[in-house]
Amino acid sequence: MRTYLECIPCFFKQAIEAGRLLTGNEIIHKELIDDLAGLIPKFSLDSTPPEMAYHISKMVKVRFGDRDLYKQIKENSNKMALELYPELKKKVEKSDDRLLAAVEIAIAGNVIDYGAKNSLNIDEEIEKLFRQEFYDIGKTIFQYENFRKDLNAAKQVLYLADNAGEVVFDRVLIEEFCREKEVIYVVRESPIINDALMKDAYDCGMDKVAKVISSGTGSPGTILKYCSKEFTEIFKNAGFIISKGQGNYEALSNIRKEIYFLLRAKCPVIARHAGAEVGDMVLKKG
Amino acid sequence: MRTYLECIPCFFKQAIEAGRLLTGNEIIHKELIDDLAGLIPKFSLDSTPPEMAYHISKMVKVRFGDRDLYKQIKENSNKMALELYPELKKKVEKSDDRLLAAVEIAIAGNVIDYGAKNSLNIDEEIEKLFRQEFYDIGKTIFQYENFRKDLNAAKQVLYLADNAGEVVFDRVLIEEFCREKEVIYVVRESPIINDALMKDAYDCGMDKVAKVISSGTGSPGTILKYCSKEFTEIFKNAGFIISKGQGNYEALSNIRKEIYFLLRAKCPVIARHAGAEVGDMVLKKG
Repeated sequence: MRTYLECIPCFFKQAIEAGRLLTGNEIIHKELIDDLAGLIPKFSLDSTPPEMAYHISKMVKVRFGDRDLYKQIKENSNKMALELYPELKKKVEKSDDRLLAAVEIAIAGNVIDYGAKNSLNIDEEIEKLFRQEFYDIGKTIFQYENFRKDLNAAKQVLYLADNAGEVVFDRVLIEEFCREKEVIYVVRESPIINDALMKDAYDCGMDKVAKVISSGTGSPGTILKYCSKEFTEIFKNAGFIISKGQGNYEALSNIRKEIYFLLRAKCPVIARHAGAEVGDMVLKKG
Repeated sequence: MRTYLECIPCFFKQAIEAGRLLTGNEIIHKELIDDLAGLIPKFSLDSTPPEMAYHISKMVKVRFGDRDLYKQIKENSNKMALELYPELKKKVEKSDDRLLAAVEIAIAGNVIDYGAKNSLNIDEEIEKLFRQEFYDIGKTIFQYENFRKDLNAAKQVLYLADNAGEVVFDRVLIEEFCREKEVIYVVRESPIINDALMKDAYDCGMDKVAKVISSGTGSPGTILKYCSKEFTEIFKNAGFIISKGQGNYEALSNIRKEIYFLLRAKCPVIARHAGAEVGDMVLKKG
């Protein structure tokens, strides 16, 4: 997906949030805003939004060094999600269609997204999510029957992770098919917003059900030109791909490859692009 | 009120909206965004947000000439508001406290604000407003008793307008005291967003109940340093001032003068600054 004009105010929101995590000094926040303003004219709308997010993160690193700004937030998300794990499993056990329930859980977990939310009240959102029944959430684009069929036929699953904490929700889905299929779970190489890293995958027990690898990039979306050779080779040969979250959707929706995108549509631009409504659970073959 | 970091993404939203009113060509929209990005580093957070909005409007004029982008929108707002006028008057007639009802109507009219809303669905909002009872709207800061007392004691009222269409709602309030007091109604000098100009005041019949003058500036808020000498003299000598809307609040909230600010708090920054909640009717002595 290319960048739309509406994404630009959002880039500034992201820079403000990153700045506030780094320092309470508003003079520095403004300097960061000014740095970003300097990048805008060089940035083409033909690029994908995660590319810009990647440049913003590099810009922050130039000023502040290579720090994992969301470290504590990610650890909290992992902990909170692990506490929910038994309840998530119960939801699957109780359901008439285990796979469907697990898919819904995996998409529901995509609410843990600090890049899209620009908000630190995600704990609350998860709580809310658990008081809500999943059938209450919109599903304008939800190609579950195709997903089930294609998944059944697949021998191997390449699963592109999105955020820390969300990994536990992904694990619930992967546990529905990891005994019959080889599963490769792909995290980011280096810290970017609250995206899952190797450590998050291990903290959430993903290594017990899948082979965990890195995409080789710290961009908040699987931008293939920034990924490692090893990963792009695996990607090229993969028969069945699950891509989680908005960042991966933005980066991969124009790629000529069959990919199942699982995400919560959190912004109007992505919702429109995917043919969904804001707030929807999206399951879409790209 | 100074500019807060959160205002910066909003400046970009305003530029995008202005660009879209000018042309459907996205290349030009992006050029406008790039122009604005160039202004950001030169802009201090110590300035008020309407100052930046003023520079954005000048920037648009450099590229596109001096056009009244919101002309049609303003004419529609005036027309729609005039159609509501009899109903507004009925609301006042029926109420136990005429002045209170008229104050509520004047503040309700402040919903017609394209600067804050970045939305063209304001017709809908007005419709909604009229299905809603005003006591349903939050009033965390609503210093009505002081307002009534000070207004009663005043001989002259200086009333700073905000938006086109809203003028009709202001007129309903002014009609409650224009027989006993001299009223001066102040519009912008030149087109800026959908702010009321002399023409709008006349179209809405304001000239029948008040002397209509211009502030001498086209900034979307009464920024005194940009106003005419004539107006600043009147302002300095005014005993009782009513300031409508967010733009005037942003421009004047730090001025050492007793001013009654009447507005609908439409953005979290202003709501926080005024000690109100987003969506509230605000009546606050500054």
